[in-house]
Amino acid sequence: MFIPEGFSFGAIASGIKKKGFDLGLIYAEKPALGVGVFTTNLVKAAPVLLGQEVLTRNNKFRAIIVNSGCANACTGEAGLLDAKEISSYLAQKLNCSPEEILPASTGVIGERLPKEKIIKAIPSLIEKLSPERYQDFAKAIMTTDAFPKIASRQIEISGVKINILGIAKGAGMIAPNMATMLAFLLTDISLPQERLAKILKAVVNKTFNRITVDGDTSTNDTVYLMASGQKKEVEKKDMTTFEKALYEVCYELASFIVKDGEGATKLVKISVTNAKSEEKALKMAKTIANSLLVKTALFGEDPNWGRFLAAMGRAGVNFDPNKVDIYVNKIKIVENGLGIGKENENKAHLEMKKPNFSITIDLKEGDYKAYYLTCDLSYDYVKINAEYRT
Amino acid sequence: MFIPEGFSFGAIASGIKKKGFDLGLIYAEKPALGVGVFTTNLVKAAPVLLGQEVLTRNNKFRAIIVNSGCANACTGEAGLLDAKEISSYLAQKLNCSPEEILPASTGVIGERLPKEKIIKAIPSLIEKLSPERYQDFAKAIMTTDAFPKIASRQIEISGVKINILGIAKGAGMIAPNMATMLAFLLTDISLPQERLAKILKAVVNKTFNRITVDGDTSTNDTVYLMASGQKKEVEKKDMTTFEKALYEVCYELASFIVKDGEGATKLVKISVTNAKSEEKALKMAKTIANSLLVKTALFGEDPNWGRFLAAMGRAGVNFDPNKVDIYVNKIKIVENGLGIGKENENKAHLEMKKPNFSITIDLKEGDYKAYYLTCDLSYDYVKINAEYRT
Repeated sequence: MFIPEGFSFGAIASGIKKKGFDLGLIYAEKPALGVGVFTTNLVKAAPVLLGQEVLTRNNKFRAIIVNSGCANACTGEAGLLDAKEISSYLAQKLNCSPEEILPASTGVIGERLPKEKIIKAIPSLIEKLSPERYQDFAKAIMTTDAFPKIASRQIEISGVKINILGIAKGAGMIAPNMATMLAFLLTDISLPQERLAKILKAVVNKTFNRITVDGDTSTNDTVYLMASGQKKEVEKKDMTTFEKALYEVCYELASFIVKDGEGATKLVKISVTNAKSEEKALKMAKTIANSLLVKTALFGEDPNWGRFLAAMGRAGVNFDPNKVDIYVNKIKIVENGLGIGKENENKAHLEMKKPNFSITIDLKEGDYKAYYLTCDLSYDYVKINAEYRT
Repeated sequence: MFIPEGFSFGAIASGIKKKGFDLGLIYAEKPALGVGVFTTNLVKAAPVLLGQEVLTRNNKFRAIIVNSGCANACTGEAGLLDAKEISSYLAQKLNCSPEEILPASTGVIGERLPKEKIIKAIPSLIEKLSPERYQDFAKAIMTTDAFPKIASRQIEISGVKINILGIAKGAGMIAPNMATMLAFLLTDISLPQERLAKILKAVVNKTFNRITVDGDTSTNDTVYLMASGQKKEVEKKDMTTFEKALYEVCYELASFIVKDGEGATKLVKISVTNAKSEEKALKMAKTIANSLLVKTALFGEDPNWGRFLAAMGRAGVNFDPNKVDIYVNKIKIVENGLGIGKENENKAHLEMKKPNFSITIDLKEGDYKAYYLTCDLSYDYVKINAEYRT
């Protein structure tokens, strides 16, 4: 892993969850530029409201504090005060302003944060800070996640090595526009804030906003990007190198989230190609990616292309069904809207036995394309989500 | 059951399915007025295209022929010719025009109809026609349905008894705007065609278009209404009596479909009340009704109201989360956006153990309301839909 200069990490078991790390901290030695992207859900959790608030008032930050086990969502004014109180206490201990703290929470909706436990744990959490503890931090933000999600890249710009580290969580309630997903991106690049914000938005739109597990969007989605600026400012022409590397980190984290989709056994890329516009391609890919009949067919390893076509037909996009070709990896199963036959379907079935594969829809109508990452829908998805909370 | 005068029914095992009735016929002694409502899916099955075609050219019909086991969808020009050939053969045997036949199919997408088997079975099917055989007909149109779906009403208008009989099928791919659902409504009322069409559209919109099992919309959805006109023409003022009875028949059939939702163990009415407009209330009810997290919580009998609020927040409808009250039957679990407490949640949990219950969302913002019928998402939904077709 490539750890950007200027950051350290901590994690602790504060007692919010029954066991394991549940409180994580990222600390910037010197004030670091920060930008964020948040859930589009109208119902926003307290830490999202607070994060948005501090980002409008401030652009340099010292810390990100994250808890798992409790989303602090649907907790009203009291929940917002809880979040503020935690930020204030942490700021005091770190000798900074509460407005230099970025908050995030994930877990059950509708319950108050156990504020006292968190505040009590903060001093020990700070003591644990170290550049090596990023894995502990990744574990502290997990909820139903089966594995911690970390990705990094190193790029060289004009002889200077620049590092990007991304840590994410998310497994359920993943949908169009981020869902219960938290991602923290750190870099030592030096860039103006507006540029950083623009790059983050573009990258999130092409990665975290193109994944779905269950079509639900959470109240808590947050992506923060912090840049310590410890490496010299890069020139505008080198921006694409940085954006590409950030894209790779985010794509990798997004794939991890879908792969870890609750109960998922397959990671599937749904590509719609040769569409009249990117928007149309995306809308269609998204509808297929969210169809329960498609997702159960993926679980059944069944190249049931009628379900793909049926989902496409209700996507609200005009197209000619009689021109459509469909592929599973490189195996063509539909040509001009008609099935090619059992032999190819059997070959496609074998491709679908793999843990990763792609479904490609060729509309043969234009020059645009888009993709969505999805997973299958299994018994375990139902099991994980049907269990009574208490 | 109240059987409208002038109709008879037949069913036969023609061999499309491995066993059981798979071909059904409704016959009108005298030409009967016919109207139809079809799938909104852009990908339309051959019988839908043919049904739409004959309805634009003709308004009196002699028969409805329906097969299960094969949808005749995504079969191109050849599939349309198959459907036409079957209609022509049937018309010849019934001494009528092929344009007096309304067709429908349901089953697997992407496979050609076994036309010869169907044609061979038609003479015996006609021999079986009888006003008593409506139950056999109901069985012949079943696919993954667990039980036949029949509802009827009798009303009296100016001393004349008028009968309405409805027969439907559907269990999966049920979604906004009808999905894999077939419904055949018969009455002996005498009414002008445009009035009949208007009433059907209004009733379908309030019943079959407000149910969801899995959010998918089929290529084959069809509702036909035939009126034999054997009872004297009713006056305009009595129309509401007829419309109300037709609504009741359709609501009952729609409830049967959701109750029989693939793997469903609960029938749940999601009501959104006191909204600023009916459209907003409906959009919100629909989003909740289709949320996988909500549907798995229903299966888990868990009054997990955070999931209801999260679904509402992504419905694309503006509202104030801090004013929302939520009820399970009569038990209030959320007041002004905040949870009321464990005691009420436990009571709500007991209500959710029942096979039928309602979730009511009170927005406290206006005077409009709307509902959606949904079911839970269980292991069996995954099982039914994940099995490889062959």
